[in-house]
Amino acid sequence: MINPPVSARRERTRERLLDAAVQVFARVGFGAASVEAIAEAAGFTRGAFYSNFESKEHLFLALTDRQFREQVVALEAAVASVGADVVHDRHVDRSAIRTVLALVTEGKAPGARWHLVGVEFELLAMRDPAVAAAWRDQQRTMRTELAEALTRLLARVGLRFAVAADVAVDLLLGTYEAAARDAYVVGRDTPDPRTLETLVDLVITEA
Amino acid sequence: MINPPVSARRERTRERLLDAAVQVFARVGFGAASVEAIAEAAGFTRGAFYSNFESKEHLFLALTDRQFREQVVALEAAVASVGADVVHDRHVDRSAIRTVLALVTEGKAPGARWHLVGVEFELLAMRDPAVAAAWRDQQRTMRTELAEALTRLLARVGLRFAVAADVAVDLLLGTYEAAARDAYVVGRDTPDPRTLETLVDLVITEA
Repeated sequence: MINPPVSARRERTRERLLDAAVQVFARVGFGAASVEAIAEAAGFTRGAFYSNFESKEHLFLALTDRQFREQVVALEAAVASVGADVVHDRHVDRSAIRTVLALVTEGKAPGARWHLVGVEFELLAMRDPAVAAAWRDQQRTMRTELAEALTRLLARVGLRFAVAADVAVDLLLGTYEAAARDAYVVGRDTPDPRTLETLVDLVITEA
Repeated sequence: MINPPVSARRERTRERLLDAAVQVFARVGFGAASVEAIAEAAGFTRGAFYSNFESKEHLFLALTDRQFREQVVALEAAVASVGADVVHDRHVDRSAIRTVLALVTEGKAPGARWHLVGVEFELLAMRDPAVAAAWRDQQRTMRTELAEALTRLLARVGLRFAVAADVAVDLLLGTYEAAARDAYVVGRDTPDPRTLETLVDLVITEA
């Protein structure tokens, strides 16, 4: 379990360690970041780190989980803000898609440096079966929750997935990640929305 | 230009350097592979390397180009082998998609180790604008050529893209790469075909 019930004080320590890790990972990368450096940046000892996280890898998964939950909340707010006026001529309004995407990613978009950290973690997971298994379990949980959240949000504005929700989520995430990678490699901050907009039109339809 | 006209002997030297580089990259990764190690594995000197390739990065792009061309040839052969019997009830036959995918990737699939090399190259390109620009130009050329080849092959079996060909190619590549990454991280060799099959159904239709 990634988020066990914890006391408020313990929760604050945990949050400070996560915040510090974002900074340290962004600065030196995942592999070069030491548990000591993360603990010190948060104002704690190694002991405090290990009473909250089993390892640097588990902390990374907890970070991913936290970012995922923030983005689902941002998604709910973004869908609420564009309202029900998103379907025109049986197509999802492209400006609505852009608005939702901008609201979800704006300020919260991890960007190129965080992409690097994620790729570094995946490379490490490929060499460590225990880390790979934890990564896979987390991916499954997040994708299932995202499929449920999107199905619910779509229904609220009179839309539904035209294909199985889990397949739609895989397509949306894969396409977003490919567009983000293409942007980051050439030094752009924002993925080209064109391919994702076309995909949204293909996988989302009127209820 | 990635493939300038060259004499037969020069071409053989170049091919041997490329073959050697595949082995060296797969063994030690992209970053740790030295020009000396690649030249030596091919039975040549550093001088022979540099009379064929400007840098290790340019050699990597030439390798990507060669693999791309081999896969387009495999794709043409695979489509020829499944014949025109690929549309049933207005849907592309899933077993035909699986056959084509297997024929294109079988034996030629770079697999997890080559995926690692590619990711390492992308990380490097993110830090070097000249490498990033060369990567972007190559990606554009390959995707344009793949869009043209697929449009031609689809027409031959009575099919066409339901969306712009370049967008379809971005969607297919992004989805394939995401499925491959998901497989490689957890130690599987073959991407789950389910998401890609659904996408094919969405982006390919009767002519």
